[in-house]
Amino acid sequence: MGLPMAKNLLDAGYQVVGYNRSEAPVEELVEDGGEDGGSPAGVAERSDVVLLCLPDSPDVENVVLGESEEAEPVIDGLSKGMTLVDHSTISPTVTEGIAERLEEAGVAMLDAPISGGEEGAIEGTLSIMVGGREAVLDEQMDVLEVLGGTVTHCGPSGAGQTTKACNQIVVAAQMVGVSEALVFAQQAGADVEAVVEAISGGAAGCWTLDNRAPAMADGDFDPGFFAEYQYKDLRIATDAGEAFGAPMPQTALAHELYKTMVQNGMGRDDNSGVMQVIRMMAGDRED
Amino acid sequence: MGLPMAKNLLDAGYQVVGYNRSEAPVEELVEDGGEDGGSPAGVAERSDVVLLCLPDSPDVENVVLGESEEAEPVIDGLSKGMTLVDHSTISPTVTEGIAERLEEAGVAMLDAPISGGEEGAIEGTLSIMVGGREAVLDEQMDVLEVLGGTVTHCGPSGAGQTTKACNQIVVAAQMVGVSEALVFAQQAGADVEAVVEAISGGAAGCWTLDNRAPAMADGDFDPGFFAEYQYKDLRIATDAGEAFGAPMPQTALAHELYKTMVQNGMGRDDNSGVMQVIRMMAGDRED
Repeated sequence: MGLPMAKNLLDAGYQVVGYNRSEAPVEELVEDGGEDGGSPAGVAERSDVVLLCLPDSPDVENVVLGESEEAEPVIDGLSKGMTLVDHSTISPTVTEGIAERLEEAGVAMLDAPISGGEEGAIEGTLSIMVGGREAVLDEQMDVLEVLGGTVTHCGPSGAGQTTKACNQIVVAAQMVGVSEALVFAQQAGADVEAVVEAISGGAAGCWTLDNRAPAMADGDFDPGFFAEYQYKDLRIATDAGEAFGAPMPQTALAHELYKTMVQNGMGRDDNSGVMQVIRMMAGDRED
Repeated sequence: MGLPMAKNLLDAGYQVVGYNRSEAPVEELVEDGGEDGGSPAGVAERSDVVLLCLPDSPDVENVVLGESEEAEPVIDGLSKGMTLVDHSTISPTVTEGIAERLEEAGVAMLDAPISGGEEGAIEGTLSIMVGGREAVLDEQMDVLEVLGGTVTHCGPSGAGQTTKACNQIVVAAQMVGVSEALVFAQQAGADVEAVVEAISGGAAGCWTLDNRAPAMADGDFDPGFFAEYQYKDLRIATDAGEAFGAPMPQTALAHELYKTMVQNGMGRDDNSGVMQVIRMMAGDRED
């Protein structure tokens, strides 16, 4: 996600210094007029605001606060008054811990996870869910509006991650619910296309029926949003539910179904591919 | 649902002969220019097409085929070439059985369950999901278009009920998913209104977020659609899943959560009130 977001910032006239573990995206950034920061700390030394987009909680902890010697973490290059914006989807409680550590160093943090996929990143139409102090968000609003079509302040530090978790809870509910409905219709011998058309306009209407059900009915699970990311996001949600005392029987079940997907080599299918697990349960195996 | 549907038929210029177990709706129908059929068989004797809307599978079996002596079932008044349209939400397999029995008597049957609630029935904007022969539907289309804004042919006998079950599977998935997300946000101390606003426009977007989440966040569960009907519809879906070999782990869980609602005296709350079960699980009891 990082490269298309960085390109949009270049296009909007910002100077961009980048770092990535693999070099290809940084080379592409430099070709487009950006600079190579050389390390997380190197980026921070040469920037006013640092934006991150990483896979999971340990990655963010390591890149920002990194305890290993070779890490050259962001915190080593940050100075008082700067702001760090984390676009990763990670744990709300881990986020709160990192924000506290940065606050001690005089650095403000916004958690700002995104949804809208690579398409949204390229077109600058991401939905950005922000946690942190409102005054800090106001200062960074110009930058965030380059990246996203909708920027919503959801509360104090961690609230952006909490909101993203809520998003993934509802997305998974839809994906599994639509999967069960389509397999039910198939097993009953109904006209699945007619079923989708008949129910999409009423109280069952949702993004998944509108945007995924036709492909799902055809067994087409090209991503889209990787099932292994949905799986990781549901683990974050259920872990946070544990911390907050929030019961989530349905989300815990969805987590298990996505685990089954990943364990069966389908992690790089679209998250709508959880329908294949329901089909496996119905005895429909490809081997 | 029957009375507003019958009134729309009267308004459209049809003669309507009605029967209801309790007399008040029939009296209101007669005041509006309809007639009292006196019994299910009495209605059938004086009609070209018979429309039903009843709570559950045994009610439809009893009213149409009724084995008890005092039943005076519809079948006793039907004659060859007539059509029966069943607007009830009942079992797809029970529907197929009834349709076969009627077919033997030379009577065609359409299963035509509805969604859109009492409001849709009053305004004639119901969504009607039809199973049965297409030629029979074509003959009855003028009548059905008085009652519904959308009439979709979904396949042979039973396919309308199958489609309605699919609808309820997806509705329940949304209701439980949104409930877990809102309780998660509340337990995390986030701004629930901002969370709903932030996630409604993306891949989590759905009817429940748009139409129920604001009231749910305020603890307002006025119906709407009774939870006890949602519970009954999920039992129909899981029973049919058993018959069809359609696995439905998430729907089976939702069925248990609605059972908990009904067992705790909340059956006449809106189906979005399943959020109260998630809150109970979080230790939030009113006593």
